[in-house]
Amino acid sequence: MQRKMLTGKDVAEHNSKDSCWVVIHGKAYDVTEFLPQHPGGQAVILKHAGRDATEAFEPIHPPDILDEYLDRSKHLGEVDMSTVTAEKPFDPDEESRQQRIASRPPLDQCFNLHDFESVARQVVKKGTWAYYSSGADDEITLRENHSAYHKIWFRPRVLVDVEKVDSSTTMLGSKCEVPFYVTATALGKLGHPEGEVVLTRAAGGHGVIQMIPTLASCSFDEIVDARRGDQVLWLQLYVNKDREITKRIVQHAEKRGCKGLFITVDAPQLGRREKDIRTKFDGAASDVLRYNPSAIDRSQGAARAISAFIDPSLSWKDIPFFKSITKMPIVLKGVQRVEDVIAAIEHDIPAVVLSNHGGRQLDTAPSAIEILAEVMPELRRRGLQDRIEVYIDGGVRRATDIIKALCLGAKGVGIGRPFLYAMSAYGEPGVARAMQLLKDEFEVGMRLVGAKSVDELGPEFVDARGIGVHGVPTPADFLSSDVYDRLVLPAFAVKPKL
Amino acid sequence: MQRKMLTGKDVAEHNSKDSCWVVIHGKAYDVTEFLPQHPGGQAVILKHAGRDATEAFEPIHPPDILDEYLDRSKHLGEVDMSTVTAEKPFDPDEESRQQRIASRPPLDQCFNLHDFESVARQVVKKGTWAYYSSGADDEITLRENHSAYHKIWFRPRVLVDVEKVDSSTTMLGSKCEVPFYVTATALGKLGHPEGEVVLTRAAGGHGVIQMIPTLASCSFDEIVDARRGDQVLWLQLYVNKDREITKRIVQHAEKRGCKGLFITVDAPQLGRREKDIRTKFDGAASDVLRYNPSAIDRSQGAARAISAFIDPSLSWKDIPFFKSITKMPIVLKGVQRVEDVIAAIEHDIPAVVLSNHGGRQLDTAPSAIEILAEVMPELRRRGLQDRIEVYIDGGVRRATDIIKALCLGAKGVGIGRPFLYAMSAYGEPGVARAMQLLKDEFEVGMRLVGAKSVDELGPEFVDARGIGVHGVPTPADFLSSDVYDRLVLPAFAVKPKL
Amino acid sequence: MQRKMLTGKDVAEHNSKDSCWVVIHGKAYDVTEFLPQHPGGQAVILKHAGRDATEAFEPIHPPDILDEYLDRSKHLGEVDMSTVTAEKPFDPDEESRQQRIASRPPLDQCFNLHDFESVARQVVKKGTWAYYSSGADDEITLRENHSAYHKIWFRPRVLVDVEKVDSSTTMLGSKCEVPFYVTATALGKLGHPEGEVVLTRAAGGHGVIQMIPTLASCSFDEIVDARRGDQVLWLQLYVNKDREITKRIVQHAEKRGCKGLFITVDAPQLGRREKDIRTKFDGAASDVLRYNPSAIDRSQGAARAISAFIDPSLSWKDIPFFKSITKMPIVLKGVQRVEDVIAAIEHDIPAVVLSNHGGRQLDTAPSAIEILAEVMPELRRRGLQDRIEVYIDGGVRRATDIIKALCLGAKGVGIGRPFLYAMSAYGEPGVARAMQLLKDEFEVGMRLVGAKSVDELGPEFVDARGIGVHGVPTPADFLSSDVYDRLVLPAFAVKPKL
Amino acid sequence: MQRKMLTGKDVAEHNSKDSCWVVIHGKAYDVTEFLPQHPGGQAVILKHAGRDATEAFEPIHPPDILDEYLDRSKHLGEVDMSTVTAEKPFDPDEESRQQRIASRPPLDQCFNLHDFESVARQVVKKGTWAYYSSGADDEITLRENHSAYHKIWFRPRVLVDVEKVDSSTTMLGSKCEVPFYVTATALGKLGHPEGEVVLTRAAGGHGVIQMIPTLASCSFDEIVDARRGDQVLWLQLYVNKDREITKRIVQHAEKRGCKGLFITVDAPQLGRREKDIRTKFDGAASDVLRYNPSAIDRSQGAARAISAFIDPSLSWKDIPFFKSITKMPIVLKGVQRVEDVIAAIEHDIPAVVLSNHGGRQLDTAPSAIEILAEVMPELRRRGLQDRIEVYIDGGVRRATDIIKALCLGAKGVGIGRPFLYAMSAYGEPGVARAMQLLKDEFEVGMRLVGAKSVDELGPEFVDARGIGVHGVPTPADFLSSDVYDRLVLPAFAVKPKL
Repeated sequence: MQRKMLTGKDVAEHNSKDSCWVVIHGKAYDVTEFLPQHPGGQAVILKHAGRDATEAFEPIHPPDILDEYLDRSKHLGEVDMSTVTAEKPFDPDEESRQQRIASRPPLDQCFNLHDFESVARQVVKKGTWAYYSSGADDEITLRENHSAYHKIWFRPRVLVDVEKVDSSTTMLGSKCEVPFYVTATALGKLGHPEGEVVLTRAAGGHGVIQMIPTLASCSFDEIVDARRGDQVLWLQLYVNKDREITKRIVQHAEKRGCKGLFITVDAPQLGRREKDIRTKFDGAASDVLRYNPSAIDRSQGAARAISAFIDPSLSWKDIPFFKSITKMPIVLKGVQRVEDVIAAIEHDIPAVVLSNHGGRQLDTAPSAIEILAEVMPELRRRGLQDRIEVYIDGGVRRATDIIKALCLGAKGVGIGRPFLYAMSAYGEPGVARAMQLLKDEFEVGMRLVGAKSVDELGPEFVDARGIGVHGVPTPADFLSSDVYDRLVLPAFAVKPKL
Repeated sequence: MQRKMLTGKDVAEHNSKDSCWVVIHGKAYDVTEFLPQHPGGQAVILKHAGRDATEAFEPIHPPDILDEYLDRSKHLGEVDMSTVTAEKPFDPDEESRQQRIASRPPLDQCFNLHDFESVARQVVKKGTWAYYSSGADDEITLRENHSAYHKIWFRPRVLVDVEKVDSSTTMLGSKCEVPFYVTATALGKLGHPEGEVVLTRAAGGHGVIQMIPTLASCSFDEIVDARRGDQVLWLQLYVNKDREITKRIVQHAEKRGCKGLFITVDAPQLGRREKDIRTKFDGAASDVLRYNPSAIDRSQGAARAISAFIDPSLSWKDIPFFKSITKMPIVLKGVQRVEDVIAAIEHDIPAVVLSNHGGRQLDTAPSAIEILAEVMPELRRRGLQDRIEVYIDGGVRRATDIIKALCLGAKGVGIGRPFLYAMSAYGEPGVARAMQLLKDEFEVGMRLVGAKSVDELGPEFVDARGIGVHGVPTPADFLSSDVYDRLVLPAFAVKPKL
Repeated sequence: MQRKMLTGKDVAEHNSKDSCWVVIHGKAYDVTEFLPQHPGGQAVILKHAGRDATEAFEPIHPPDILDEYLDRSKHLGEVDMSTVTAEKPFDPDEESRQQRIASRPPLDQCFNLHDFESVARQVVKKGTWAYYSSGADDEITLRENHSAYHKIWFRPRVLVDVEKVDSSTTMLGSKCEVPFYVTATALGKLGHPEGEVVLTRAAGGHGVIQMIPTLASCSFDEIVDARRGDQVLWLQLYVNKDREITKRIVQHAEKRGCKGLFITVDAPQLGRREKDIRTKFDGAASDVLRYNPSAIDRSQGAARAISAFIDPSLSWKDIPFFKSITKMPIVLKGVQRVEDVIAAIEHDIPAVVLSNHGGRQLDTAPSAIEILAEVMPELRRRGLQDRIEVYIDGGVRRATDIIKALCLGAKGVGIGRPFLYAMSAYGEPGVARAMQLLKDEFEVGMRLVGAKSVDELGPEFVDARGIGVHGVPTPADFLSSDVYDRLVLPAFAVKPKL
Repeated sequence: MQRKMLTGKDVAEHNSKDSCWVVIHGKAYDVTEFLPQHPGGQAVILKHAGRDATEAFEPIHPPDILDEYLDRSKHLGEVDMSTVTAEKPFDPDEESRQQRIASRPPLDQCFNLHDFESVARQVVKKGTWAYYSSGADDEITLRENHSAYHKIWFRPRVLVDVEKVDSSTTMLGSKCEVPFYVTATALGKLGHPEGEVVLTRAAGGHGVIQMIPTLASCSFDEIVDARRGDQVLWLQLYVNKDREITKRIVQHAEKRGCKGLFITVDAPQLGRREKDIRTKFDGAASDVLRYNPSAIDRSQGAARAISAFIDPSLSWKDIPFFKSITKMPIVLKGVQRVEDVIAAIEHDIPAVVLSNHGGRQLDTAPSAIEILAEVMPELRRRGLQDRIEVYIDGGVRRATDIIKALCLGAKGVGIGRPFLYAMSAYGEPGVARAMQLLKDEFEVGMRLVGAKSVDELGPEFVDARGIGVHGVPTPADFLSSDVYDRLVLPAFAVKPKL
């Protein structure tokens, strides 16, 4: 049943809307009929019509997607790649990026999670940075997520024997070495050619749980295959309008040993991320980001583009369906107010993640740590605090942030971008070092607040009175401040260079 | 009854206070006697005495003003324009402005209302910018208007079916596609040669209500003529001391189909706008801004200059007069405290606009959104919440701002400068895109807060505890901050260019 | 009884500690015995020993001081000035200052009080600027004085007939055109060669009351002589340890028609003003500032130097003494808490000035407006509000500031530095324009808050809830803010120059 | 019993892990067996194997340490230093530092404690600066320590006789001239070749108590020997796991006349100080900072490295031990919440120091002044205020800070870094001037708040309502602030240079 190998010239003839072939990983595909269904719009495919599209395709599609979504009859077979013209025009931006990669700080100069972000910002492609780092609208929530932790101050306890500190805990019944986990983030191959498996390997080495994203660049099975031993994995789920697809994904994950199902509930529509959108126009970002539905030409209708992925009609009435298809604990990811935590308890949901989706959805939505500080006292008031596990994510950069969350009642803390940045900047060693630094910080922090184990932490260790305060300074009186003559420090006879 | 055509030389002889002729749109006028009555002062007219004044006159006067205010006997007839010397000295500022216009970002790079402002700032004339953008005194209220929205945070609801979102609502009984309207702003021709009709056309295309300003550059009828179909228009009114003029304006508007009469009550005197005033002295602004009474030589008495337009004695006792001359719903625009909302209810006023006049009147007057947050609970406490419709304007830049206002009880939200800026930067397509962006943002925002329609919104969706807090930071301790040595991120071997 | 005229050579022989003569205004004086008593220290005199000291002496001593404090026998008579060598070395700083004076903005470009400060900063001598502008320690109170007004927001009233606004009021029983007065500031000749009389003339022209400072550069009588008609003047008093001197000063002032005696109670010791002190070491400031006792070599003991002027033992027990020597109303200037206002009432004091001495004494002492907001409700609670007039000073830059103070219960508002700056920058026309601008602002402000006269103002016009809040932002997380990639506005193809 | 003098060549042969000799102060030592026990790690010693290590050893070890910790048999005797090759490579950083030292501002230009810090920053070695100035994590607590004082405002009292002000007080029963003391800071020789004795001498001259640090560069006896007369000294103690060592240190201190034992309770593990850690990698810091255990290669385990110094198991159960070995008053240094102050009272502890270790341990731990404001009212509520003396340290830079602490109930205030900086910048005269400036500021401050002596101070002199508020501004809306066009001050025809 062997077919003759195709040539570059064969493919090149199908370079239009009417007949559109593309080459991916050495094989040709006829995507003419698929064009109008492509979630990222057809323009981005047509740009590669009649040519090799592997480089654009690779980072944003799982490898098995063509098998799943494109009818077998459209798989045209192998192409003799020696007949395909390589196209790599000179790109000054890319050249200077390669120079930055070459002059990266050594890994051991990264001492905290900010450091990895700083390196990643300079070594990833412009479009990757825009996709990873961007948030909704004015990115106020994006930044609030971290800065909210600075509204909480410690009340350290002294003269406690803290010679031995135990950082381990359990989440959804699984043991883990530390009370943080790798939360789901999309499109890992934008940052590293191997994608999410890099995170899996580092997490395995550190006893850290990882949540596998629906929108991973790696296939689900590749990620599961990369785990070591009984390493714990969870599944993050965007619910498809076609519940059969959802059912297949969930049951496959359960079969492969996933220990928790995290249903994203804060994304009936993807948020507007202007940094990401604008980047495209600067000419430097590749087309791949068209995959982000929020960037789609609105004349086509954003809702339609998204509908293939995410069901905006998802509601409480769908909970029984999920219970019917899996025995994994069902966790609602993206809950944002106490009323909905209570509703979750009423629906016998064993856990929620308080989250605003990393500040990528609704701007001026509150930080998870603030919601937590509102939720837990109310649960305690109602005697519900043991009915549900509460997780949070967003903005965590220091182990002290984690300790604060645990004090306020979180069972565990999800960390997303920082590990992506560590991966993008230094690969697996980067992620491993990021995890080790957090562990070290955590141990120091526990000793200094005066707690030997995670379960000793409680609200009496923190002063969280300021968490609900959103101060916006009164606009400056520039005439007054400009005319003010600042005090100065004593001058050196010769101005020193600092 | 034909008169001989005048020549440039004829006109040029009347170039002094004693006999002052000017040419406007090819016709000569004798304004000698009118000089002392000119609201903008006589100096600005005398500058054009004996010459063609069209370019200065055009953007700030409605075309029918000469017919209305200058006695027929002073209309001297047509001028043979070939005999009038054109005067256009080289202006380097204008040349560089034309270059900026030519290198404007493409319209589709504007993704939010700030973007239009940014482009407009660079492409309009200096004087236009100063007039449009300026606020009272230190412009604290001007900026507070927007930043106050950041004191309000969302409490989003999840797991609600938001597949279909309906953005439509009614205002003063009229249906509209979205809960925002184009509020009145003066002198549209300063930003665009066609003036306010540009806004009318864009609003018509988007189902948005427009409020027609008393001080429009276009004549009232030009604007009304530009509407499409049953497009809803309102009239904004500065009350004239001569109530007959006011009566004529109001009744004409009603006859032409206006659906609401918005009486400005926050401007018994125009505020001091220093950016506007100072611009004149920089030499770049044209004389036209003399029209702004606050810029008038005070030795002449500002009150006198204004009195032709606005009656500073306007008070509650005048309400019956307005009721007697029109059946349009009467709305008080510029109410700023709850006591006056209650007074409006007592006077059977069907609606108010909480507004500080875009920060152009009294500095450190509170933002409308703050007043709203004070007003609605008090109305509810008194059971008056259904007795009056409450609108607000000022500082709205994001659809999330609108959603916050609706949650707090506003019936609709007025937007002024952003549409002026979109018009000044890109004309009608600019305004249309600004409206479309707001609609898109609004739909996303509704989905993400978890509401399907405008009437579902309510106070439980927001945390507005911070709205009344006006934090002014304690003055900085510069010695301490200057001597502090900031932490740094890891250095690259070769400093990267960012 | 004529003495032979002295020559420069005669004087030059007495150029040491053992015999020290100086020439002032063409006359020689033997100050050898006076040296140790000089409040500014003897070093500064010795620098001019045997030479003409007029230029250094002039701006900081009243002209009659030699007659008052130096025994007649030490007055050596006239000097033939043609025999005295003029010494004026080239001073590049002074030359560039003269250039700045020449290129000053025209007076009519000053539109608010900040503008005068900005010009003054650049045209006065370095030492003058340091002396006038400096405050205590970190100058936190200095700046808080103005910024505290931004914690108070208006609650404007609309639909009030404000055609006629009356700005006049009475203070200590005297009529005045406006509710502000010129408060006492020292050493006017540092800013203008004619000194305080410049202020007197401008105040006379505007119906503004002036408070004459103890430490004026002009003599008391010069100032009184400069008044026009029944212009109201007050006397500010530093209480001398020698009560006879104090008695003489007070009774002379009463005789010359002063209408109020303002006893400074916030300066038992002069504050530390580092900007002032440091300037000396930069070499540019003249010796004259040695007059500021806080700058005195501490090895000599600051207390001793000051003791000649100010009595640190002044206390409530001294009040009867003042009542015994004058019938002028006695006002305590520098009261800083409600307990002391009540004590004043108990001592039958008719008025106090809440003041922190322009931020020049105790750093982090509260602003007068904050003290006022604490004082008046407490007085009302005790039914004492009519027992005393309360004035405030410090930080007033806008008429809205004055209106806020009046709303909160102040009878009048003192303004010091702004008039000094206007005088230093433009002389009497500057001060007159500053006063006119304030009057204009005041009238606009009254109309816009909705009040026709000063007595209509009250607490219901302002929201002062924030006045007692002293927010100090949590120290910034620089790693986090440095790594954040700000959103940007759309770029022009060619970067425009702004 | 004389041994032949060793030569450089003899020593040089022992330059490896297997046999490691070093020369210190002209004597050779065999440290081969000691290598694995060196708290700073063995790498730093091996760098000097076979060579003269004096310069690296000197600043961070007390001179008697070799006698105490290295067995006599490893003392190899004197080395003929003429045979040892000096190694001093050219160091451009050091050269420019020497230039800065030469161009230092004269001491009399330092007018406050910030000034000394500013000079020290530029004249000490990079590694010294990093070690002295660094704080934990993001250094938020480090800066909060000072800025917290700006949340407290004065309520000054006027008309009090303050001619004579008495600054003296007692601490732990000892008289002292002022209510501040020199608190313990490590490694004084990093800043000055003579180390801590410089502080001792200056303190002796000013009647200021000094607390001797466990980790001093000088030996304990050197410091005690430097005192004058009955100068009061205290001992700061890091508790050793080996209680015998601790007992020896404590009893020796008591024998030498120490008047208080301050046990550090906030350092079961040293904090993470990234500025310090990062400096090493920049290549400029010397190895000496390896001594800081937080910088140790974590693969070796930080806990192990520290265990030689500090016992992380120290707890309340150890208190009786300390009482059993000394009669000195026992003070707990580093208490951070009211519960632990009460526990101290229950353990009959006569005093505590509220402290966060200069912001070097747990980031976002509160400032001592904030803890004080929480502690004292609670003690008063329980009637315990006289059962314990409460001291605070951290962030004090102004005498007004001290006065605020005393008003809130502190018995005395510790100052550490500022005196280190004064010492590093100017030696003993620097420290003496720093103390004198504080005394002067204190006297002025007392007069201006209206208090004659320390015991008159109380809570009624301050407004501390803001002390518990930790405001974190809402993230900025950069689009909005970038597009805003600031008001400007009037322009000069020729731009002046400022």
